[in-house]
Amino acid sequence: MLTADRTVPEETPVALSYGGTTHAVMMATPADLTDFALGFSLTEGIVASSDEIENVAIEDLGAGIDIQIRLKDPANARFEARRRRLAGPVGCGLCGIESIEEAMRSARSVGASELSIGPAEIAQAVRELAARQPLHTETGAVHAAGFYQPGKGIVATREDVGRHNAVDKLAGALTKAAIAGATGAVVVTSRVSVEMVQKTAAIGAPFIIAVSAPTALAIRTAAGAGMTLVALVRGEDYDIFTHPERTTFGAEKHVA
Amino acid sequence: MLTADRTVPEETPVALSYGGTTHAVMMATPADLTDFALGFSLTEGIVASSDEIENVAIEDLGAGIDIQIRLKDPANARFEARRRRLAGPVGCGLCGIESIEEAMRSARSVGASELSIGPAEIAQAVRELAARQPLHTETGAVHAAGFYQPGKGIVATREDVGRHNAVDKLAGALTKAAIAGATGAVVVTSRVSVEMVQKTAAIGAPFIIAVSAPTALAIRTAAGAGMTLVALVRGEDYDIFTHPERTTFGAEKHVA
Repeated sequence: MLTADRTVPEETPVALSYGGTTHAVMMATPADLTDFALGFSLTEGIVASSDEIENVAIEDLGAGIDIQIRLKDPANARFEARRRRLAGPVGCGLCGIESIEEAMRSARSVGASELSIGPAEIAQAVRELAARQPLHTETGAVHAAGFYQPGKGIVATREDVGRHNAVDKLAGALTKAAIAGATGAVVVTSRVSVEMVQKTAAIGAPFIIAVSAPTALAIRTAAGAGMTLVALVRGEDYDIFTHPERTTFGAEKHVA
Repeated sequence: MLTADRTVPEETPVALSYGGTTHAVMMATPADLTDFALGFSLTEGIVASSDEIENVAIEDLGAGIDIQIRLKDPANARFEARRRRLAGPVGCGLCGIESIEEAMRSARSVGASELSIGPAEIAQAVRELAARQPLHTETGAVHAAGFYQPGKGIVATREDVGRHNAVDKLAGALTKAAIAGATGAVVVTSRVSVEMVQKTAAIGAPFIIAVSAPTALAIRTAAGAGMTLVALVRGEDYDIFTHPERTTFGAEKHVA
């Protein structure tokens, strides 16, 4: 084997099934799958809290992994009604989001938070996240999502070949640890698409910090949700795209 | 606006509909949409050639873009039969791929090609692709896919916020220009997931060159399809992961 000296990340089809029906199949890193099931259910709005999940069963099928999630009512009845509604002519869509309107759902508002994170903390958050990526250190090819709390640093990290999956796994880990999203910032190693903002809003975090760039739609969605979006962090240099009132520099763009 | 001095890429939900039924909604860069419709139809195996497409109509709905594709028979009958089969308990999956088995479909074999691309050409292909990314140059945040032909260089390039979309757009552009996939290599600025290998195989290209790293599943799929996978290209340095017989160095790993 030519590549014996190069470690590459695994990637496995992971099916998420609710009530025995496959809802989505994601290409994912086969680790932290309970966090993934819990977080995906939360950030996609299938459950409002982890209390609505009765049971999660993970089965390795060889060619992929099946995660069977059993919901309690009323979440189960809500999911079944949505499924029946979508079984009509619409057919099939993006990872279970079956129409443009659903893809464009507005993010939950996180505007009430008074969280404040200054420039030194933003640099620290990105630095600490970079130090807590064992899989990326080994393979150089996976994304990470972490949660930063002022005064505490990065308190949770999850990795995945897919950047959305990393945020979903983080959402699950935070819920399991009873860490409220409103208490800190989601920190990601990747670019920020609208779905990253929607998932961060579902976590309840009023602040997202990204190493790479956001899309225009991500910026508009963060602005509408009352979320502070800081991106293109390079050491002490970064751009503030929305709601600068949560940073020490206020309305000023920070360039170190 | 704080970000007036920073250009960010657009990102728009694009629905792909066949016979009036939405098949998938992708977050994409709203450019080269006819190429996207054609290429997605080809790389997802919905049509075997562009001749099976009767008509493509693109409508801007404001919140997103709807692409209505009308298929000729037998492609239309095939698609309808597949849709009816999947309307059962399986529900909905990854971008229209409704089960693990479908996600794991083996890539079309490209092993018959005698294409050969040496180290200097690989470096040239990546260098030329980097020079043909106007949107990335402006925003620093989109992926590109190009097609390299020995002796000619990069003959087609497409960009998108999504790396799969960039390859789909390239597939459409190649078909429109009547460039046979077997005559060159697909060159991507991104990582290589299994879907990138599947789409490259659908294009018929026996060679994929990537700036970033592959996943283990991508490597196994390329090996099975008879495809040469070269990745982690940094100037004249890169790794050969599968089928080294198509490079000048033969069975040797190249490290400059």
